[in-house]
Amino acid sequence: MALAVGMRVLTRALHRPWARGLRVAPGRTGPAAGGGDGVRCFGSPRVLVEPDPAAGVAVVKMRNPPVNSFSLEFLTELLISLEKLENDKTFRGIILTSDHPGIFSAGLDLTEMCGRKPEHYMEYWKAVQEMWLRFYLSNLVVIAAINGVSPAGGCLLSLTCDYRVLANNPKYTIGLNETRLGIVAPFWFKDMMVNTVGYRTAERALQLGLLFPPAEALRVGVVDQVVPEDQVQSTARSVMAQWLAIPDHARQLTKTLMRKPTADRLLTERDADIQTFVRFICRDSVQKSLHAYLEKLKQKKG
Amino acid sequence: MALAVGMRVLTRALHRPWARGLRVAPGRTGPAAGGGDGVRCFGSPRVLVEPDPAAGVAVVKMRNPPVNSFSLEFLTELLISLEKLENDKTFRGIILTSDHPGIFSAGLDLTEMCGRKPEHYMEYWKAVQEMWLRFYLSNLVVIAAINGVSPAGGCLLSLTCDYRVLANNPKYTIGLNETRLGIVAPFWFKDMMVNTVGYRTAERALQLGLLFPPAEALRVGVVDQVVPEDQVQSTARSVMAQWLAIPDHARQLTKTLMRKPTADRLLTERDADIQTFVRFICRDSVQKSLHAYLEKLKQKKG
Amino acid sequence: MALAVGMRVLTRALHRPWARGLRVAPGRTGPAAGGGDGVRCFGSPRVLVEPDPAAGVAVVKMRNPPVNSFSLEFLTELLISLEKLENDKTFRGIILTSDHPGIFSAGLDLTEMCGRKPEHYMEYWKAVQEMWLRFYLSNLVVIAAINGVSPAGGCLLSLTCDYRVLANNPKYTIGLNETRLGIVAPFWFKDMMVNTVGYRTAERALQLGLLFPPAEALRVGVVDQVVPEDQVQSTARSVMAQWLAIPDHARQLTKTLMRKPTADRLLTERDADIQTFVRFICRDSVQKSLHAYLEKLKQKKG
Repeated sequence: MALAVGMRVLTRALHRPWARGLRVAPGRTGPAAGGGDGVRCFGSPRVLVEPDPAAGVAVVKMRNPPVNSFSLEFLTELLISLEKLENDKTFRGIILTSDHPGIFSAGLDLTEMCGRKPEHYMEYWKAVQEMWLRFYLSNLVVIAAINGVSPAGGCLLSLTCDYRVLANNPKYTIGLNETRLGIVAPFWFKDMMVNTVGYRTAERALQLGLLFPPAEALRVGVVDQVVPEDQVQSTARSVMAQWLAIPDHARQLTKTLMRKPTADRLLTERDADIQTFVRFICRDSVQKSLHAYLEKLKQKKG
Repeated sequence: MALAVGMRVLTRALHRPWARGLRVAPGRTGPAAGGGDGVRCFGSPRVLVEPDPAAGVAVVKMRNPPVNSFSLEFLTELLISLEKLENDKTFRGIILTSDHPGIFSAGLDLTEMCGRKPEHYMEYWKAVQEMWLRFYLSNLVVIAAINGVSPAGGCLLSLTCDYRVLANNPKYTIGLNETRLGIVAPFWFKDMMVNTVGYRTAERALQLGLLFPPAEALRVGVVDQVVPEDQVQSTARSVMAQWLAIPDHARQLTKTLMRKPTADRLLTERDADIQTFVRFICRDSVQKSLHAYLEKLKQKKG
Repeated sequence: MALAVGMRVLTRALHRPWARGLRVAPGRTGPAAGGGDGVRCFGSPRVLVEPDPAAGVAVVKMRNPPVNSFSLEFLTELLISLEKLENDKTFRGIILTSDHPGIFSAGLDLTEMCGRKPEHYMEYWKAVQEMWLRFYLSNLVVIAAINGVSPAGGCLLSLTCDYRVLANNPKYTIGLNETRLGIVAPFWFKDMMVNTVGYRTAERALQLGLLFPPAEALRVGVVDQVVPEDQVQSTARSVMAQWLAIPDHARQLTKTLMRKPTADRLLTERDADIQTFVRFICRDSVQKSLHAYLEKLKQKKG
């Protein structure tokens, strides 16, 4: 839902090479993260997976230009990648990062929320919920290597991970900034934020729609570690090693013990949450505002 | 319920000019806070309201000498002022402060709790609950400009606000000190304290009845900011501007999302909470102790 | 459940004089902690109680060599001591510490969990639950003077106390390290950890089975104070004085207000929790692993 931020980011992105129709075919061959041994990458058009079977780790790179927004297609590909890795005993952990440094993810995709039928909104919101549930409860160790801005849904995705490493670039802010755009984060965004930074910090951050720069993000606990930009991936690998030192079964049960109550809240109210979203998005005023906003984006682009 | 603190404060207060029957008539004309444009103030004998319509902000000054204790009349006037401002579209935020620096509020009024009938205690406690509910859930942005000591109920009122600025004067302590007086903070005082400073800090602070001086209050999170005494009001104004930059509707819904579960706990147990209070206050031992305490205060005064 | 740590500790312990069958008879006469006035000590073979009636305080020293593990006998004696002190109006607080510096407690006793009948496991786990409930809800002020390592169950016992003073020795780590041993802390261990250090720190600490050295333990809030090793007892006494300055009745009601919801969760699921434990411990794989582990310990010993 990062409308305002999304726009600024998008505008900048249009002047970058990778945003100009860059579309790497799946199956490209390249050095595995940290390996350099030419292991075959796989994945899908929008999600690149670089496996390091020896380490039991895969690097999952989001590449949905220009801002890694959560289109329905992207969400589907991301979840398929996650499921494949979860079902492959080779892998015990994944590092989630962006294929284009500068933007981790801008979150929800406005084009999915504008000028469509209610059925589409329902399907879309269900996919967003599913993304959250699946990452939040994944049996794999999931480390976020946050190498770019991460507002709204991008922050949400980061918070589902077991550990967050953020590049120390003052432009790389992170937070749930929904109120700044005149909208409200759903209760499960809020629940996870409270879990991560505590009630009081969440209360203030959510009301003010705060986007934290790295030092501040570390201080309040939105991220666990801030490192120089060129060390984000290597730090994520080191942290992963620490998590993989723990027997999977005990770690997974403990993760479930911690997170199940929060996930259950959405599971029991899932349909109501979809209805709330659809009712909100179908309002004339909201549709008008989204439409005007998208027109503006197109003009900037054109 | 700040008996002990209330006494010390009261004793000191008797030697101050503003405590000697000072009673400013409502409607006095003066510079609006931060404005200086001679806007007409309104309010009631115990609550002065200084509006700044251009900014959409009103400064609400408590003036119930000597210690701004929560008499039934004061609570009534305070809530009427709040309701008026909430119903006037001119205003989006209020700054809550004391008309006599040195004392923010000493909290509950002992004379309301001594030598009366059970019906009176019921009415009184309901008014205290109402004050909490209305401030805690107010649609307005409420910033506390804490310019004096703030024990027990005074701390409670501060904690209902969206943001707390405390004057950096070591005498201006703040906290829920009920246990020091042999009494117990109700569960909703506790819930809000846990929300604000976290479970462990609240557990220790409530059991020990800790009153935090400014630096400590900031460290544990009872207040959000500590500034020199002469900058409390101006800081509160700056902070207000930050909160008013957020669209009201989104901010209000987010505030409700955060606070409704805590408020609902009291709402569902409101009558039981009143019964608990009345049963406690009607005990012979409690009445004797309160009576002796008030006699002591009168002697000091006389 | 501190298998790995328990082993290392045990191995070292075998080279210490006090571990060689040291068994002090109850009723030995010695200086009361902080008193030096030759008050008669009491207690039981595994729990030494040094009363200081004048102060209203008793020092409870665990002495179940080599690692103060929670054997059924030890748990029974510990609870009897607690009950005696709670029923004796002389005492308002206890300081819980180890009779052999270097080890506070290694937690659960493996021999109680290996090669026995399901009935025994049921009885054992019920005793562990009882220990937790009784200490967590004790009407006495309980201060932990942590003068040694405190993994798993040792950490659990520390967390039940009202305040934790840890000796500043880098070897004295503290934490719930269950996952490192391939097992999972029960939900009530988790609840208390969340209460003490917050959700996010608990989530990471429990999954990684972190054992915090003193500085880190203080930073995250697992302990409240870290002092030089020779000042642990005196600091615990000073802290006790601060807690005893509060009227007992108000403090006790406030403690209950804070802790009852957490205790109630176990109380309502107590039988299910026992079943879970027994099912887990009766697994062939678990029994084999425990058996092999104990054999290794015996060989080291022999």
